[in-house]
Amino acid sequence: MLHFECDYACGAHPAVLKALMETNEEQHCGYSEDERCEKAREIIREQCACPDAAVHFVVGGTQANLLVIEAGLRSFEGVLCADTGHINVHETGAVEATGHKVLPLPPTDGKISADQVREAVLLQRGDSSHEHIVRPAMVYISHPTEIGTLYSADELTALSETCHELGLTLFVDGARLGYGLAAMPEVDLPFLARTCDAFTIGGTKVGLLFGEAIVMPGKALRDCFRYHMKQRGAMLAKGRLLGVQFEAMMQDGLYVKASRKANQQAQAIKQAFVDAGFPLYCDTLANQIFITMPNEAYEALSRKHAITYWGKVDEQRCAVRLVTSVCTRDEDVAVLLKDIAGLASFA
Amino acid sequence: MLHFECDYACGAHPAVLKALMETNEEQHCGYSEDERCEKAREIIREQCACPDAAVHFVVGGTQANLLVIEAGLRSFEGVLCADTGHINVHETGAVEATGHKVLPLPPTDGKISADQVREAVLLQRGDSSHEHIVRPAMVYISHPTEIGTLYSADELTALSETCHELGLTLFVDGARLGYGLAAMPEVDLPFLARTCDAFTIGGTKVGLLFGEAIVMPGKALRDCFRYHMKQRGAMLAKGRLLGVQFEAMMQDGLYVKASRKANQQAQAIKQAFVDAGFPLYCDTLANQIFITMPNEAYEALSRKHAITYWGKVDEQRCAVRLVTSVCTRDEDVAVLLKDIAGLASFA
Amino acid sequence: MLHFECDYACGAHPAVLKALMETNEEQHCGYSEDERCEKAREIIREQCACPDAAVHFVVGGTQANLLVIEAGLRSFEGVLCADTGHINVHETGAVEATGHKVLPLPPTDGKISADQVREAVLLQRGDSSHEHIVRPAMVYISHPTEIGTLYSADELTALSETCHELGLTLFVDGARLGYGLAAMPEVDLPFLARTCDAFTIGGTKVGLLFGEAIVMPGKALRDCFRYHMKQRGAMLAKGRLLGVQFEAMMQDGLYVKASRKANQQAQAIKQAFVDAGFPLYCDTLANQIFITMPNEAYEALSRKHAITYWGKVDEQRCAVRLVTSVCTRDEDVAVLLKDIAGLASFA
Amino acid sequence: MLHFECDYACGAHPAVLKALMETNEEQHCGYSEDERCEKAREIIREQCACPDAAVHFVVGGTQANLLVIEAGLRSFEGVLCADTGHINVHETGAVEATGHKVLPLPPTDGKISADQVREAVLLQRGDSSHEHIVRPAMVYISHPTEIGTLYSADELTALSETCHELGLTLFVDGARLGYGLAAMPEVDLPFLARTCDAFTIGGTKVGLLFGEAIVMPGKALRDCFRYHMKQRGAMLAKGRLLGVQFEAMMQDGLYVKASRKANQQAQAIKQAFVDAGFPLYCDTLANQIFITMPNEAYEALSRKHAITYWGKVDEQRCAVRLVTSVCTRDEDVAVLLKDIAGLASFA
Repeated sequence: MLHFECDYACGAHPAVLKALMETNEEQHCGYSEDERCEKAREIIREQCACPDAAVHFVVGGTQANLLVIEAGLRSFEGVLCADTGHINVHETGAVEATGHKVLPLPPTDGKISADQVREAVLLQRGDSSHEHIVRPAMVYISHPTEIGTLYSADELTALSETCHELGLTLFVDGARLGYGLAAMPEVDLPFLARTCDAFTIGGTKVGLLFGEAIVMPGKALRDCFRYHMKQRGAMLAKGRLLGVQFEAMMQDGLYVKASRKANQQAQAIKQAFVDAGFPLYCDTLANQIFITMPNEAYEALSRKHAITYWGKVDEQRCAVRLVTSVCTRDEDVAVLLKDIAGLASFA
Repeated sequence: MLHFECDYACGAHPAVLKALMETNEEQHCGYSEDERCEKAREIIREQCACPDAAVHFVVGGTQANLLVIEAGLRSFEGVLCADTGHINVHETGAVEATGHKVLPLPPTDGKISADQVREAVLLQRGDSSHEHIVRPAMVYISHPTEIGTLYSADELTALSETCHELGLTLFVDGARLGYGLAAMPEVDLPFLARTCDAFTIGGTKVGLLFGEAIVMPGKALRDCFRYHMKQRGAMLAKGRLLGVQFEAMMQDGLYVKASRKANQQAQAIKQAFVDAGFPLYCDTLANQIFITMPNEAYEALSRKHAITYWGKVDEQRCAVRLVTSVCTRDEDVAVLLKDIAGLASFA
Repeated sequence: MLHFECDYACGAHPAVLKALMETNEEQHCGYSEDERCEKAREIIREQCACPDAAVHFVVGGTQANLLVIEAGLRSFEGVLCADTGHINVHETGAVEATGHKVLPLPPTDGKISADQVREAVLLQRGDSSHEHIVRPAMVYISHPTEIGTLYSADELTALSETCHELGLTLFVDGARLGYGLAAMPEVDLPFLARTCDAFTIGGTKVGLLFGEAIVMPGKALRDCFRYHMKQRGAMLAKGRLLGVQFEAMMQDGLYVKASRKANQQAQAIKQAFVDAGFPLYCDTLANQIFITMPNEAYEALSRKHAITYWGKVDEQRCAVRLVTSVCTRDEDVAVLLKDIAGLASFA
Repeated sequence: MLHFECDYACGAHPAVLKALMETNEEQHCGYSEDERCEKAREIIREQCACPDAAVHFVVGGTQANLLVIEAGLRSFEGVLCADTGHINVHETGAVEATGHKVLPLPPTDGKISADQVREAVLLQRGDSSHEHIVRPAMVYISHPTEIGTLYSADELTALSETCHELGLTLFVDGARLGYGLAAMPEVDLPFLARTCDAFTIGGTKVGLLFGEAIVMPGKALRDCFRYHMKQRGAMLAKGRLLGVQFEAMMQDGLYVKASRKANQQAQAIKQAFVDAGFPLYCDTLANQIFITMPNEAYEALSRKHAITYWGKVDEQRCAVRLVTSVCTRDEDVAVLLKDIAGLASFA
């Protein structure tokens, strides 16, 4: 069984594993206050062209999301997001467990717009019962989105300007950021640092054993953030593991370079489906692809490859997701491509 | 600078690192539903002589604590513990952040007793305003305790019987359990599995890069535990990393064997202080030792070794903690022993 | 200015005020453990034909909602409701502040159906990532709904059967229950007691100074409910005030009788609008009516009467809500009817 | 049975009841945005000599406490208080249910001191692991305290100065404030307004049917407070009831005048016990008195009068609390005094 159902089926990128081995006997103080973490922070600040950014490392994406959101909201405030947003549908109510309402908006191509944000904010503020309504105070988006699409630089700029004009903060969940950076160079790290109040550089799905870097370019959210981390169980005792891994993956552009290869693999797979006569469920440029196929084709393919059933399209057909990662092997892709070609009779 | 201030200054035990390297290219499904985790669970169940135990893996100790406690309490219920308990003083209110009150009791030698538990429970239940008082519903203890002491089998049995008679659950935080198992064999894994409703097998401080195994021998706390994990950001995407590490450390008795050596190092250090004329702050048998020393001795020693200032004893003297771990090197201990001998003039 | 914008503009129904005066010098123990509350509970149990029902009194509707919901859910569970539901849009995230996600469904005529509930529950349970998704465990509906519509007995039976088949509980918010009981006799108190796991008998909007009775016919939600009440600040010190008021309003059928008159006033107002040529925004039978009118008509009418702007219909027209209550005076209605007739030129 | 066990056994002071009757037919908008509430606010601001104070009305004391505390703390912050403080022992963990730790200090005569606050704050801040420890950010005291004692003006000034020097806020729970104001004139409303960041003027125990006024003289805590109120179910629909009652009780000095009489009744009862040979459990000047008496005396007295068993003193004796209120009748006190005299044989 080859794994194309997610981007966390393997261990670490070889460069990351090597760094962990080489530093294993080093002794460091705990909780990410060590030199290795400081080094990784410096690299990230430099690549973001933001020497003053606060950078924190946590183990997982749900931790990163709930931390940034609860740190950035007062108790009666909520966070706007696409109704398909990870925090709204796939984190078992982690944000609500911190006491805050997630305020869903209907997305287009997985994305929400500055206009939607403005409308939602003004609707609450203009209501004579505004004190009875959760106050939107942050916008959460994912880049790439849950369906693999990407915000353009213009879309992000509009969101950022609208948020800041209205007094909201903008938080970008970059669990798959590497693939996004590789697929759409106009949205690079310095752009994100200029545009967002917080964003994550995802490691778990981009070659690390685990780890997300939370980058806070401005002052809006950072105060006392480590208290929040400890309180939510998100401060790693051997914190240096996060520093070591991010240093290995970020330096010399490896983060984007390795992601680019995964994107190319994914796009080749997409093309194979198209060539075999299957329509796209939605079109994407990064490491996730979504295909509409007959139920029989899904069943045939999933006998040999772990892939994700994304949802029913109609009685005969379903949407299927396939994912590559920086650890995906070319030989596995070759097998898959051949098997896709063999599906043409189902199309 | 040699590190004796904690048991998480190094990376992993060589056996753990080796296992991570060897399994790096394996492909597994996520979230600890893979074969590696299942294998580690089997080993733990077997060593606990408890084939039905639920076993869950999380990254850190604060996560383990807050999860077991919030999963085991109704909203108006609280958890009894020593006022020195880690959850009461060193987790930034993580339990309270889940909505529950920590109910502190004054410990003796770092430990609370069955009688204290009984008295606290009956006091609440017998009060005519009992509905205005948080209801004790769980007991949390650490073994070893925060000051390195150990519960005897009789003490644990009494706690367990009292808890169960009164309808409470008993949770043992085993962040340093290996050192406890090695130092007091009468409290072994099968004993804990017969005695507690939940206990943790600490990995982070006992040779893993990270990881705590939560063992729930009975049915009291386990229902839907994975929902709790996901909601609190405690479900690791590449969950197999926890399985691989626990398998490596638990099999062939390595967990206890390696801990025993660390205990011996700690006890040798303790003896060196005694020989140099320093009194013990409290007597311990496991990997943490506590020495009372003049402030000047502390300053001299801490110039060369990272050690922990534990508190002021009087104007001239302080309590100091030193810790070994399964990763502590004999050559480092040798250096320390010599330096302690050199402190005799301060005693 | 006459008040038709809500059903809490006045003080209490004369019978309620009289009872408060007559019992003012009585001495009672606190927190609703007195004879007055017990008497009111008995009356309610009898009128519900449910001698075993648990009955609790709280001051306000948001309190009642958050209490029943948080008492009935485990931390990772959520409550299904119409997206227009009071808990979803008009309680400042009170449910989320207790840690639980509100799971909105699109309503028809303000109501959700048994089929929607079933679909939502099965979707979560059937998902391979179900542990990453909030588990629906309760259904919240309002009767009358937020837009004044009423569930039929068949609709409620279907909801109840579906909930219980799937292991969910059904909670009916009866903030305006009196008006519902008067308008649709097939849904009476015994019917609700047979059908729901919890429902409220609203007092604040039906003649009391304040107060909601929470009725729990079965065992599902009641355990330790008073602990929840105290923890959320919902236990009234002089609890007997709630008993005295409910006794006064419930006995001899006053609750429904007085509501019926308010419904008649509302329906007369509705008819006046229809006669003047204004279309209904939605059709209702109880004490709230919703009219579509030109913006100018709204402005003209609201100069003299407090009424509620409900939302924009198009550039020229808006929806407007008018409400009567058991305290609405016939002479005020007469004035309003005349003023409505005068609006005909706008229609 | 005459009631001396609490100060909420009766209904309202006649002046309050009269005002409620007279205003019953008035029509007002809801949620305390009406003229009656505004009038009451003005009276309070004037009596506090603090024209800019924010004044909010809620129904009960636990609501007031949890609201001020959760509004004033960030998620990782806690509130210092006496370990006997109402929030620590008698509100079912209401503060913890909002996510915050209560940080208890050992009181002297029911009171905590500025020095204790300073020490606790500096201990946390000076700890190298301060991020692992809940940060004290507010001080909660009661005046009168839970055992009826009173803070002197000097003690309050010292607390206030220490809090503000260290960046904490000071919150005074005045559930029985009237009795305190009457017993110790040096701590009057203007003094409290100059000294505290928030304090409550208790109504429930001082003649109202229900109600606490939260006064916030400065800007520290007030922002968006009404959102907090609504979210916690503490916004009364017919808010004018709170305004009407506070207006009636506060104007013309009735609040203090009526309290003074209750204090005199209590002190007469205290003297009767002393005359009968019973020692004081602690000495108080306001409306609560605490007597040490043989268990038999307690049993004899409690057959005829509702009084509170406060705790065991030794095998033979217990502490007993008796309370008067602004509604206590002189004829009931006369009966009690006679019955106390009859207890002399037990002394």
